[in-house]
Amino acid sequence: MTEPTRIDKDKVATSRRRFLREGSSMAGAAVIAGALGGGEALAASESSANLPPNVPEWMKTPGDPMGTQPYGTPSRFEKDVVKNIPKNLPQYLSASGRTPLQDLDGIITPNGLFYERHHGGVPTIDPAQHRLMLHGLVDKPLILTMEDIRRFPSESHIHFLECSGNPGYEKPYGKTASDLVGLLSCAEWTGVSLKVVLHEAGLQPGAKWVVAEGADAAAMTRSVPIEKCLDDALLVYSQNGERLRPQQGYPLRLLLPGFEGNMNVKWLRRLRVAAEPVYSREETSKYTDLMPDGSAREFTFYMEAKSIITRPSGGQRLIAPGFHEVSGIAWSGRGKIRRVDVSVDDGKSWHVAELQEPVLTRALTRFRLPWRWDGQPAVIQSRATDETGYVQPTLAELLAVRGENYYYHNNAIWPWRIAADGEVSNAHA
Amino acid sequence: MTEPTRIDKDKVATSRRRFLREGSSMAGAAVIAGALGGGEALAASESSANLPPNVPEWMKTPGDPMGTQPYGTPSRFEKDVVKNIPKNLPQYLSASGRTPLQDLDGIITPNGLFYERHHGGVPTIDPAQHRLMLHGLVDKPLILTMEDIRRFPSESHIHFLECSGNPGYEKPYGKTASDLVGLLSCAEWTGVSLKVVLHEAGLQPGAKWVVAEGADAAAMTRSVPIEKCLDDALLVYSQNGERLRPQQGYPLRLLLPGFEGNMNVKWLRRLRVAAEPVYSREETSKYTDLMPDGSAREFTFYMEAKSIITRPSGGQRLIAPGFHEVSGIAWSGRGKIRRVDVSVDDGKSWHVAELQEPVLTRALTRFRLPWRWDGQPAVIQSRATDETGYVQPTLAELLAVRGENYYYHNNAIWPWRIAADGEVSNAHA
Repeated sequence: MTEPTRIDKDKVATSRRRFLREGSSMAGAAVIAGALGGGEALAASESSANLPPNVPEWMKTPGDPMGTQPYGTPSRFEKDVVKNIPKNLPQYLSASGRTPLQDLDGIITPNGLFYERHHGGVPTIDPAQHRLMLHGLVDKPLILTMEDIRRFPSESHIHFLECSGNPGYEKPYGKTASDLVGLLSCAEWTGVSLKVVLHEAGLQPGAKWVVAEGADAAAMTRSVPIEKCLDDALLVYSQNGERLRPQQGYPLRLLLPGFEGNMNVKWLRRLRVAAEPVYSREETSKYTDLMPDGSAREFTFYMEAKSIITRPSGGQRLIAPGFHEVSGIAWSGRGKIRRVDVSVDDGKSWHVAELQEPVLTRALTRFRLPWRWDGQPAVIQSRATDETGYVQPTLAELLAVRGENYYYHNNAIWPWRIAADGEVSNAHA
Repeated sequence: MTEPTRIDKDKVATSRRRFLREGSSMAGAAVIAGALGGGEALAASESSANLPPNVPEWMKTPGDPMGTQPYGTPSRFEKDVVKNIPKNLPQYLSASGRTPLQDLDGIITPNGLFYERHHGGVPTIDPAQHRLMLHGLVDKPLILTMEDIRRFPSESHIHFLECSGNPGYEKPYGKTASDLVGLLSCAEWTGVSLKVVLHEAGLQPGAKWVVAEGADAAAMTRSVPIEKCLDDALLVYSQNGERLRPQQGYPLRLLLPGFEGNMNVKWLRRLRVAAEPVYSREETSKYTDLMPDGSAREFTFYMEAKSIITRPSGGQRLIAPGFHEVSGIAWSGRGKIRRVDVSVDDGKSWHVAELQEPVLTRALTRFRLPWRWDGQPAVIQSRATDETGYVQPTLAELLAVRGENYYYHNNAIWPWRIAADGEVSNAHA
């Protein structure tokens, strides 16, 4: 072990008190720039007097009137904060667009930036014509309209959703947090317990799987174990308050909290209760992991514990040494995040990060660690532990078990390298 | 007291079990329509066979390719779900647009539908030019750039925001939940603790108030007691993950959880620490309540406990007798909602509603009660109790104390009338 870093010697450095104490020992209007160790230089006219800044142009004339945007959009100064869509793909019908995680705060992903992944394009579905059929090993097959589904008792829960190829184990890994794990978002979902609907139909003996089919051109089909369907599975019609967006399955999707994204079938039109899984393309040639012994892991379902630092992260730049909050997100398909450790010295030592309450099951959890960057090159990374005690592995640990031939379910720790000029880059790239 | 309603005699009727038991006693593909007591008639071809519905048009051709919407928008079938903006106002520079609460689920309001209220239009502010000045009774006046503010330690919290004139005590009261209390929304906010920034500047003896000023053409100005500023007040830059929308104060607003909306100054440019409040227009001629004895309630700050049923609610229609979930939202500026009671018999009897977890302080709380409508005229209403024990009053109780001359801070119970044909209307209109 090398010498502990300063952050280890001085426990107070990791608390907010230290931040305040150093700040309050300085004087003058530029104090913040000093306390933070950098910051934009203040104009003399602003810093010299106990007066408000000059009245800006936008106070001198009325602003936009009410109703300019009956459905609001972001500021034009945020026009570059959009989904991260690959350039120059051969086709865009089976493709993915990523959430710009490095630009976001908190745990809720706004609907306009929710990641999307589809296999036959996004269908335009008239909700008045949409039907959900429930059949197979049930006493009473059902065909439900959206109005029928809306009349069942409802539930709302905040859960993350993540594609299992996030990132795929392939190089290059990408530059930003979005490039790496942007097939990940989190929302408040509202819908009907699938258990309630299955009970309405009446399960017959031998019912072990429910085969879900989407109403898109790919007829996306996945088999779901009956235990999940009788647990926290939801038929979802709303996301962050409003109805689902088309890219998220409007008017109806399956939500299987913690399960790999692909199983959360969008544009849901059919549920067939069965004794066996259907072994669809997406559970045989895709979404399985080829192991070193030649066998394939299939039906892995739950996304394991994972985390990533989003600020500072690849593509960003620390403008100066001094105080920087390290902030990121952690999640586990198995339940709640119990703890996140952060290292700022290339894994030599680790510090327990603060978790933002409420910590919810199968939801993103925001973590933070105060940090004073000394201006030297550094490698920073985070490591999640969930309530089952599972600890997020390093990439080396993952490769040692899985070999080089797997693609999905990569939940490795992802370090960021910080150069002396403050540039942040992917330490594995 | 009149006879208890059926829902009183049979406790199980308020549980999900009853819903299922009745459902499972029916047979055939139209079972749901039967169990729910209505529903759209199913086509014979759909209900007659154990087969999926006909393949719809949208499965026969590819959908929209990836990237059609780098920043997503709702389905075109949801085009009428927009902010509720009054028609034919004399001007729209000092006006308000309401959240369509009756169309929303859960507790998060999507940013595009967040209510707006401004007094001089919505300014377009370049965040690179924006400054926050902190001065007055402090050791070190500060002028902060947005970059400075982003470098402080951050926090994220889900809180509601509500205009104090919601509704104003004036007739007509409006037809929908949005007309009545749509100056109400809820989001996950991220920003910096104001306490941290005040400590950075150093408070001087006698600091009792902080006067906040917005950078809009109205220079919106409000006085905030120092106790709130040293408690949970935040300088907010993000809402539901992304940066604030222009209508919500981009690039920076004050958030005072539980305080009347107007005090949560948007486009925040100045904080002056003072010994006295400023007695601005918005704390004298506006946002005060004229009482029967001729005195005026001023500086009321906290929004008291309140609730409203959003489904079914005014403007909606119950399509048939049978099962209908009663769902709504409750909130209190004083803390958490402890309990919501719902009456379906014009206030004769009350039933404890289920509260959706997590119940968060100063946030919307979703409540629900299963209900079987017998097809007779009915009056339904909800009553919130918060963790301080405060109980939402009836309109009569409120008028008995306040008289007829007050305008703001109306937190009365609001009943909906259901006619025999299922039409829902405002019972006080």
